[in-house]
Amino acid sequence: MNAEEKLIKLGIILPPPPPAVAAYQPWVHTGNLVITSGQLPWKNGEIAYTGKLGAEMDEDQGYQAARLCVINAIAQLKDAIGDLEKIRQFVRIEGYVHCAPGFRGHPQVLNGASDLVNEVFAERGRHARLALGINEMPLYAAVQLAVTAEVSD
Amino acid sequence: MNAEEKLIKLGIILPPPPPAVAAYQPWVHTGNLVITSGQLPWKNGEIAYTGKLGAEMDEDQGYQAARLCVINAIAQLKDAIGDLEKIRQFVRIEGYVHCAPGFRGHPQVLNGASDLVNEVFAERGRHARLALGINEMPLYAAVQLAVTAEVSD
Amino acid sequence: MNAEEKLIKLGIILPPPPPAVAAYQPWVHTGNLVITSGQLPWKNGEIAYTGKLGAEMDEDQGYQAARLCVINAIAQLKDAIGDLEKIRQFVRIEGYVHCAPGFRGHPQVLNGASDLVNEVFAERGRHARLALGINEMPLYAAVQLAVTAEVSD
Repeated sequence: MNAEEKLIKLGIILPPPPPAVAAYQPWVHTGNLVITSGQLPWKNGEIAYTGKLGAEMDEDQGYQAARLCVINAIAQLKDAIGDLEKIRQFVRIEGYVHCAPGFRGHPQVLNGASDLVNEVFAERGRHARLALGINEMPLYAAVQLAVTAEVSD
Repeated sequence: MNAEEKLIKLGIILPPPPPAVAAYQPWVHTGNLVITSGQLPWKNGEIAYTGKLGAEMDEDQGYQAARLCVINAIAQLKDAIGDLEKIRQFVRIEGYVHCAPGFRGHPQVLNGASDLVNEVFAERGRHARLALGINEMPLYAAVQLAVTAEVSD
Repeated sequence: MNAEEKLIKLGIILPPPPPAVAAYQPWVHTGNLVITSGQLPWKNGEIAYTGKLGAEMDEDQGYQAARLCVINAIAQLKDAIGDLEKIRQFVRIEGYVHCAPGFRGHPQVLNGASDLVNEVFAERGRHARLALGINEMPLYAAVQLAVTAEVSD
């Protein structure tokens, strides 16, 4: 199964790539790298998960938020290169978790993104990761992710 | 008009590239990429915009702070490659907004950087962006930006 | 003296590269770049420096935490390429300081990483840097660093 088939098997339909909310581009292609802008948990034009982990959001909701962010990132990559099979390697996922004082579950939340990428892209999905807690997130989103991927010519 | 001419038309004189404040370099050139260190809103050797958005700083001041940060970043790029026409593409602007609890205007603040880059560099200025709210910023600066640009050989 | 000899002279024995704490890889190699995941101040399987700068941690402890993070990052780079002499250039150190309201010593803390890299790798150690204050850090670690390095084929 290729990546598209794995997504379908998981019941995931890639959404249209979310447009930028300000004066920037959703992704840029430089050399063999595609770098996405920060992806928020958009669904049907709305932020589906708002709030701070450790306050209004529990860890499972955070996991789902991270999963949705990376689905949007995959949609951006497809928009950039046309075919998910051209992704040679996920390079890095930067994960930013909107959290209240005392929250410690960043790794569990961000696994919502990592688990999906690992499942859909297998070896090509193996990525480095950054995990930070952020006090004030744009649009009060629960999670923001940025993805760097190596792509073929 | 090239980028230098557009800057002049906008009344912008590129400052000397701000030196690093500690044991690092203001920029590094690797392959076809130049990556700047975090740029603060320096002007004549002082941080021109200090404070937190949503507290001591309003959104318009934040916009001006982001604009000043990216002017300093452009000065670093010129220092790195000698000629702004060698910039093929702005790749990414990472925008960090120093903010108080409840602030939500990150995109508007960071447009201070994006608008200028888009105006001066046109197609070459189109960039991916990251926008985060930071609780404690070095030197109490209102904004910090890091820029990655693709340059010609 | 090469980098390994300089480390020995400084009394530093590279530890085994710390494993990832979740569903990601400690480093990824893309083109001529190696990018590490966020490195925490692990020592013998425990986080050696926990707490917030400006609260439980003083600046000297923060400096030591940053130094330990970058020692772990160097161990990751060695794991990636086998020989530290294959590092052509440190490109970027992203430094995230776990801090309490009012803390301003980010540059001094992160010099714990930069000073070591500069001493061990000399010209090859010259790097761009990002310095941010983070309110909630994974595992309550005092510092987190991510390193990008250019390596030879």
